[in-house]
Amino acid sequence: MPSSVLYMSMSLDGYIAAPNDGPGNPGGDNFMRLHAWGLTPDGKQRTDGTAGKIFDEYNATGAIVVGRRTAEQVDHWGGDHHGRGVPIFVPSHRPPGPSVANYPLVTYVTDGIESAMAQAKAAAGDRDVLVQGGDTAQRALEAEVLDELQIHQIPVLFGGGRRLFDVLPSRVELDIVRVVDTPESTHIRYRVRR
Amino acid sequence: MPSSVLYMSMSLDGYIAAPNDGPGNPGGDNFMRLHAWGLTPDGKQRTDGTAGKIFDEYNATGAIVVGRRTAEQVDHWGGDHHGRGVPIFVPSHRPPGPSVANYPLVTYVTDGIESAMAQAKAAAGDRDVLVQGGDTAQRALEAEVLDELQIHQIPVLFGGGRRLFDVLPSRVELDIVRVVDTPESTHIRYRVRR
Repeated sequence: MPSSVLYMSMSLDGYIAAPNDGPGNPGGDNFMRLHAWGLTPDGKQRTDGTAGKIFDEYNATGAIVVGRRTAEQVDHWGGDHHGRGVPIFVPSHRPPGPSVANYPLVTYVTDGIESAMAQAKAAAGDRDVLVQGGDTAQRALEAEVLDELQIHQIPVLFGGGRRLFDVLPSRVELDIVRVVDTPESTHIRYRVRR
Repeated sequence: MPSSVLYMSMSLDGYIAAPNDGPGNPGGDNFMRLHAWGLTPDGKQRTDGTAGKIFDEYNATGAIVVGRRTAEQVDHWGGDHHGRGVPIFVPSHRPPGPSVANYPLVTYVTDGIESAMAQAKAAAGDRDVLVQGGDTAQRALEAEVLDELQIHQIPVLFGGGRRLFDVLPSRVELDIVRVVDTPESTHIRYRVRR
């Protein structure tokens, strides 16, 4: 059965963005440290080894649910997330900014994360749904519409920044689905226990 | 060369104690969830499998540096940490409570974490030093006297409580020394890069 899967790179101390994260400095100071495991020297997705295999899974997803903050920081990837032509759903209570009118694949969903996820799952069919963004992850966990978490845990302590998990209303039990051990990242995939 | 090694069980969202942690409720509500990987049904250290091997390393350490909060919550393990007869150093700027007079293995160190660690390393000789406690871990990292971190990462989101890593003054790079993958815990050992 297809799953909604959060893909996030996180420091050991739980940060997904470095200090001084903001519109002019998306991700914060030298936040690319968290993403080095997956990128070639010229900034493209690696296609070799473990990183390549993980990106194969990532790229095989059939829809995206992404937080507004993440989406706007990269202007919705120019309307097409990594050139894959799959629909992008952005849960938000406010209307989208003007650029979104040019992006037929981008839909702002104003009636909550459950609705955004239901639309994404319907669009993805038999493929997984890719979930991105810290706030969105937490809202999806709270609403019990997040099925799995693929965490790329990076061997660094950021010391500050923005956390993936801040405070949740209750404990969430997970099962470890897979651990892939590389020098650059410990890739742990969890399934939310229901 | 012997190392100072932090051993801590941590939830995926970074908590080492659950909500409502305090003197009458050490570790917080159902915090033993974090330690179930290592315990038998009657609460003793497991001696089998991965847990047994990790406790062999843990029990082979030759001295302990532990935060005051942790030490006092368990009244200094009655003066002998897990019956191993090794010295226990507690960095604190305040004098110890009265029970400590009965514990010849327990030394309160008032002149800082560097001094506590130096005394522990001297006492441990060719063995590693066991480090425990969230505040103590952070102070040791800041003072650059923590060599390794053995994190038992537990597949649960606590949602709240007390974090192992709060805010550090600067980024700390780590190397992954070893990953041991079990269903109960992902045991990741890191070395602090200097």
